Amino acid sequence: MALSARNQLQGTVRSVKLGTIMAEVVVDVGGNEIVSAVTRGSAERLGLSEGSAVTVVIKATDVML
Amino acid sequence: MALSARNQLQGTVRSVKLGTIMAEVVVDVGGNEIVSAVTRGSAERLGLSEGSAVTVVIKATDVML
Amino acid sequence: MALSARNQLQGTVRSVKLGTIMAEVVVDVGGNEIVSAVTRGSAERLGLSEGSAVTVVIKATDVML
Amino acid sequence: MALSARNQLQGTVRSVKLGTIMAEVVVDVGGNEIVSAVTRGSAERLGLSEGSAVTVVIKATDVML
Amino acid sequence: MALSARNQLQGTVRSVKLGTIMAEVVVDVGGNEIVSAVTRGSAERLGLSEGSAVTVVIKATDVML
Amino acid sequence: MALSARNQLQGTVRSVKLGTIMAEVVVDVGGNEIVSAVTRGSAERLGLSEGSAVTVVIKATDVML
Repeated sequence: MALSARNQLQGTVRSVKLGTIMAEVVVDVGGNEIVSAVTRGSAERLGLSEGSAVTVVIKATDVML
Repeated sequence: MALSARNQLQGTVRSVKLGTIMAEVVVDVGGNEIVSAVTRGSAERLGLSEGSAVTVVIKATDVML
Repeated sequence: MALSARNQLQGTVRSVKLGTIMAEVVVDVGGNEIVSAVTRGSAERLGLSEGSAVTVVIKATDVML
Repeated sequence: MALSARNQLQGTVRSVKLGTIMAEVVVDVGGNEIVSAVTRGSAERLGLSEGSAVTVVIKATDVML
Repeated sequence: MALSARNQLQGTVRSVKLGTIMAEVVVDVGGNEIVSAVTRGSAERLGLSEGSAVTVVIKATDVML
Repeated sequence: MALSARNQLQGTVRSVKLGTIMAEVVVDVGGNEIVSAVTRGSAERLGLSEGSAVTVVIKATDVML
């Protein structure tokens, strides 16, 4: 799927921590660690676990300098 | 300044493009290209230009997988 | 591409307006009009124009009630 | 209240799930299901439950294509 | 309109600057200056100009510390 | 650290509530109460508790009117 989000980085899941509503997923992207907070439902639907290959997606308007 | 944003990555500005209200800044982070859309006022206040060292900051709740 | 964003709605582009940095895209989703502000670069890369079929994607943490 | 957010869609709450800090609210909007993650405090203050009429509000800069 | 966004602050518009797609609105909130970037369409629809009374609305998940 | 986010307001923490993944932090900013939802990890890393001095940071594109 083409997606307007300008930032799409390939990475590998390092850890997944599930809460009641939210989940925290830590991803290794070229040696940098990126932390993502998504809904638990999304983490489960994507079947994420340590070692999963993922694409980290970030909209340009959400990137600060 | 300590900042709650979980993702803070060191990078180098590759290009800055200014519009009337917004600006687009492309940053090299470890070989990955990250695009940021900030207000023109911010880009000017930070004095960004090609080669500037910057920290890319992204809140975890804005990161999708 | 599987994507964690919980909201992915099929729609049809009604209009595209380009600025220097940003673009405004109006999409018809089942009779509702959804307005999106993306970078001009994204709108051009996706080749959006009136009548294009698109998926509107919104992260759950960006939805208010 | 007039509000700058460009996207304001009428819907009906299908389900509310409460966590410690966050809550997940699923809303039916013209047959499409929209998922919202708000604070638990907001969900309680609004008195949301199955069948509640709500307005789904999304800022244009948070809409991807 | 009740709105889930936890932060709703009364203020007065100090300035409005219009671009092609976006607009920058500076608001005085109890002596603090808050800058908002909305679509030009929203700024025009709300009829904002210097001195307008507005409510600044910010979702809790968009607030960093 | 210079930061592109246009809104940086000095405040004092009133309360911190921790969930499994997220935390809710209420901050007094010049008499206004601002609510922030950050990851629990961020709240712990910053060592936030009642009375802590903090800077509330909000990107202009996340501010609605």
